[in-house]
Amino acid sequence: MTSSPNDDKLPRLVGVLDTSAGSDRRIRRVAPDEPILSAFDLAATRGDGAFESMLVVAGVPNKPERHLARLARSAAALGIRGPGDDDWAALIAELVADWPSDAEGVLKLVVSRGQEGEPDGQPATAYGTLVPISPTLVAQRRDGVAVVNLSLGYPAAARQQSPWLLGGVKYLSYAVNMAAKRHAASVGADDVIFTSAEGTVLEGPSSTVIWEHDDTIRTPPTDTGILRGTTQELLFDRLGDIGMKGAIRPATIDDLLGAAGAWLCSSTRGIAAIRSIDGKAMPQSDLTARLQQLIGIPVR
Amino acid sequence: MTSSPNDDKLPRLVGVLDTSAGSDRRIRRVAPDEPILSAFDLAATRGDGAFESMLVVAGVPNKPERHLARLARSAAALGIRGPGDDDWAALIAELVADWPSDAEGVLKLVVSRGQEGEPDGQPATAYGTLVPISPTLVAQRRDGVAVVNLSLGYPAAARQQSPWLLGGVKYLSYAVNMAAKRHAASVGADDVIFTSAEGTVLEGPSSTVIWEHDDTIRTPPTDTGILRGTTQELLFDRLGDIGMKGAIRPATIDDLLGAAGAWLCSSTRGIAAIRSIDGKAMPQSDLTARLQQLIGIPVR
Repeated sequence: MTSSPNDDKLPRLVGVLDTSAGSDRRIRRVAPDEPILSAFDLAATRGDGAFESMLVVAGVPNKPERHLARLARSAAALGIRGPGDDDWAALIAELVADWPSDAEGVLKLVVSRGQEGEPDGQPATAYGTLVPISPTLVAQRRDGVAVVNLSLGYPAAARQQSPWLLGGVKYLSYAVNMAAKRHAASVGADDVIFTSAEGTVLEGPSSTVIWEHDDTIRTPPTDTGILRGTTQELLFDRLGDIGMKGAIRPATIDDLLGAAGAWLCSSTRGIAAIRSIDGKAMPQSDLTARLQQLIGIPVR
Repeated sequence: MTSSPNDDKLPRLVGVLDTSAGSDRRIRRVAPDEPILSAFDLAATRGDGAFESMLVVAGVPNKPERHLARLARSAAALGIRGPGDDDWAALIAELVADWPSDAEGVLKLVVSRGQEGEPDGQPATAYGTLVPISPTLVAQRRDGVAVVNLSLGYPAAARQQSPWLLGGVKYLSYAVNMAAKRHAASVGADDVIFTSAEGTVLEGPSSTVIWEHDDTIRTPPTDTGILRGTTQELLFDRLGDIGMKGAIRPATIDDLLGAAGAWLCSSTRGIAAIRSIDGKAMPQSDLTARLQQLIGIPVR
């Protein structure tokens, strides 16, 4: 989340969606430092909401329909009645229209349950932001990432069996994800692969894990409670273009180390080759550039 | 989180702590609906912060020193440099001074890592709120609670082994805790007891579990990753006053059902008798009133 000096001239855009019924003016633009959330907003007091982050490149949001579909699924799983797709799409369009087309940006959508103490049916809080992409993420597309394997604690089947554990929901409660990333940084790594209590590969704190196996790209099953990755799903839809196909398979860290290549996929970073896991070098596949091209991610 | 009509005349107080170095005016009071958090505050975007809730009764905050100690432990575990105890104490004093002494209130302290995109060492976000206690919680002191047992998914040892899972940290990422409470409400229960993957009793989503065994009150060990309960610790310190003592012991749900009585303890609700677990009636101990008295909780 660091900014480079070159980003200093790029804007930081914020738009708030008015979700109350009968409101005329749906989008309220505010300055980036202007407070928009009360002390009682459940986003802040309980991490009780959902979010999406998408890349904006060449003045166009990347796969917004997949992000809106996942945001709707997350909000539904949380029982939050947020804005409809049309309102979100209008917010995306307005922010992107004000974004310089020669800069990559990260567009984030946030929806929370609203204010503590309000009765059920309260208006949700909803807003979007558009900021410069972190140069660190851009560099990782080119240079790959060194990762550490950390346990997520759960047995692989735990979240599937217990819907209150919110498996598959992209919620705002990311304290553990952020702590895992800080732990990785403290041991000199760039990122994390979470494994289950039994040692099966799950996902990164903000990425999907994929790996090469013969003429397929594999990724773990979502019945482990991991998020459906919008980038992984887009990639799998397009693998036929390069004569490959996707497959859902469980794996261990040893399986990854023995693969022809492995990557972390996410919407803003795109596809980053895993250089090493816990200090053990990974084979580097020559597919990296082709996979990045398939999903339309620029590499510089 | 519902309000009763009687609460309508009670205020909702908010004070923001200025944590930047060299600031003269440390506490800024704002109206309850006034926005105080930007779109980039990590409390909202990542649930990346810590909090405490304490009871205010007869114009006095209940065991603030225990809450400030736990808040400092939580912030340290998250690597957040928040306000010092003196600043928090000044905020507590100012809010309590404006609170009607004949009303019970809930005073909440919140600290987040600050704004996304700021360099390390950024000022933390810190604020406090003081609002009327929910009549539902007050009624539960008198009427007890029907609970359901839900799995927290983790094996009991998982969080102790993996500090990035933030066991024992009272963080803002409470989406799972809130989802568990919604699940309980959907099946007609008041609250939840989380158990580990192996079925050992952990804690409630916002409470500590205690139960009666001979002349002791027992509670589960914190090496399971549960929070240290400020109410449970205060109670254990005072059990000698009624000729009893506290003990740390693991238990199963069957152990609770076989106990002479069991309770959920929390700072605002106090000590509420567990009436039933998953629809099975719990023995009702005659200790409830004495335990409530020991920790200074009014029952009406």
